[in-house]
Amino acid sequence: MHELIALDWGTSSLRAARIAADGTVLDEHHSPEGILNVAAGAFPAVFAAAVERWQPAPGALCLAGGMVGSRQGWREAPYCPCPSGFADLVGRITWVPDAPGGLRLGLVPGLQAEAHGVPDVMRGEETQIVGALDLLGLDDGLFVLPGTHSKWARVRGRRIEGFSTFMTGEVYALLRRHSILARTLPPEDGPLDEAAFLRGVGHARQAGSLLHAAFSARTLALFGQLDAGALPSYLSGLVIGEELRSQALPTGQEVVLIGAPALTARYQLALRSLGVPARTAGDHATWHGLWTLARTLESPR
Amino acid sequence: MHELIALDWGTSSLRAARIAADGTVLDEHHSPEGILNVAAGAFPAVFAAAVERWQPAPGALCLAGGMVGSRQGWREAPYCPCPSGFADLVGRITWVPDAPGGLRLGLVPGLQAEAHGVPDVMRGEETQIVGALDLLGLDDGLFVLPGTHSKWARVRGRRIEGFSTFMTGEVYALLRRHSILARTLPPEDGPLDEAAFLRGVGHARQAGSLLHAAFSARTLALFGQLDAGALPSYLSGLVIGEELRSQALPTGQEVVLIGAPALTARYQLALRSLGVPARTAGDHATWHGLWTLARTLESPR
Repeated sequence: MHELIALDWGTSSLRAARIAADGTVLDEHHSPEGILNVAAGAFPAVFAAAVERWQPAPGALCLAGGMVGSRQGWREAPYCPCPSGFADLVGRITWVPDAPGGLRLGLVPGLQAEAHGVPDVMRGEETQIVGALDLLGLDDGLFVLPGTHSKWARVRGRRIEGFSTFMTGEVYALLRRHSILARTLPPEDGPLDEAAFLRGVGHARQAGSLLHAAFSARTLALFGQLDAGALPSYLSGLVIGEELRSQALPTGQEVVLIGAPALTARYQLALRSLGVPARTAGDHATWHGLWTLARTLESPR
Repeated sequence: MHELIALDWGTSSLRAARIAADGTVLDEHHSPEGILNVAAGAFPAVFAAAVERWQPAPGALCLAGGMVGSRQGWREAPYCPCPSGFADLVGRITWVPDAPGGLRLGLVPGLQAEAHGVPDVMRGEETQIVGALDLLGLDDGLFVLPGTHSKWARVRGRRIEGFSTFMTGEVYALLRRHSILARTLPPEDGPLDEAAFLRGVGHARQAGSLLHAAFSARTLALFGQLDAGALPSYLSGLVIGEELRSQALPTGQEVVLIGAPALTARYQLALRSLGVPARTAGDHATWHGLWTLARTLESPR
């Protein structure tokens, strides 16, 4: 195993890292050049500019995960069907021909699942799950990646068996900024009010549907039963509580939360209130995932 | 019982009608002067202009329902607690002192319910339910009023025992216009695609939460399994199906749908696919409800 240049190339940002053979991140660079900000035909130039600081030798391995492999990205890396393990993902890497500097650039595929005859997709989160599995030394588990579109993935024997997407973060933003509730909520979210947040989690589970539960943010304010300042925390509890309501939560098994600490902390709080223990893996999971895939590529078992 | 001047005074429009002693609507007038479009202090003048065409005699009865009785309206008509029957509503009418022309103007109160320690409210729909009960000759039933904020009300012995609000119409508009789904949907909704609509209803029930189900509108389009033109109907089925999913639907009993025909027809279609019969009452329920309340006022039983 040699050094790796890893890229986390999403919709709105590009992150690049130089990773040592032992997995240590040696250097890291961020830019706003997400795929929506890259002009047609400019992917090779943006890539070259992002990695040239490390003067990689021709043939050096670069792996990129995220939306760069989508239909709107540099080149489509078709989805890998579930169940998929590390070797399946590596086997479906799409190699970019004639990458700048003679580099060996591979795009990690996203994952595709199906439930009730309807497809579901992820792109980027599979790499974070790979990283978390290796970092935490796990073979099985329920992995939750909160965000604009949260992912819940079931892993068994280091294979992602299936997953579901929840538009939780996006629906929070829509309700918070564009719905009738926006008239009552303060302009800024402020720090988390834990009691209001947990009240929201609890009400979401009783109400049975967010379509009903969300209206309570209005009526509680109308009757002075919740301060306006606590409403963003309450609404956050409602949407996260709705996500948890519809899931069969494991008993006696930890859930693994992957993502930004401020968000995973909320899920950890909500899960704890339901008696479900959770541990967290941070953003480092992406770099470790790309490094783990590179290791799998170079030392297939 | 004498003639009645009835007003349906909502957030964005004002409708007024002259109703004969036998309940016949003799004349009707619409204007965009909903309460949000009435300047501070201008309620008396707007009211006078709306009714002067009928030259009502001093002391003539006028009843107004809707948001005009909210805190943002002319004068607050406090919510009436559930369970409430016709006489309870009439007993809580808020009379406007010194109404223009010496008219006897009453504001119909809204209704308040509570479930799981959280209040719920309606204002205007209670009048429609009263009207539908009288029009259809019913004493009991499950009444559904679809809309921006749908209401599900349980009636027994002509008393509204309780109800729940669902932000169905508003969430449809948010997802359709402001979410990531908006990128895939065509600019206009077009006519209803019944097959796509019912597919949405079915998937919402299987998915267990709209947060998850909504993402299917994206993936079905991504994999070419649903034409872009059918997506608005599918999304409409998802949100209406979500509303139905979380309800204990009656068996062997008709649901009564009250509202605009284009919308109640969708609910009727969705309910029929679940084996639940439904009948509809149109917009006339509002006028008939105000007339029924006036009759109750003048001939208390």
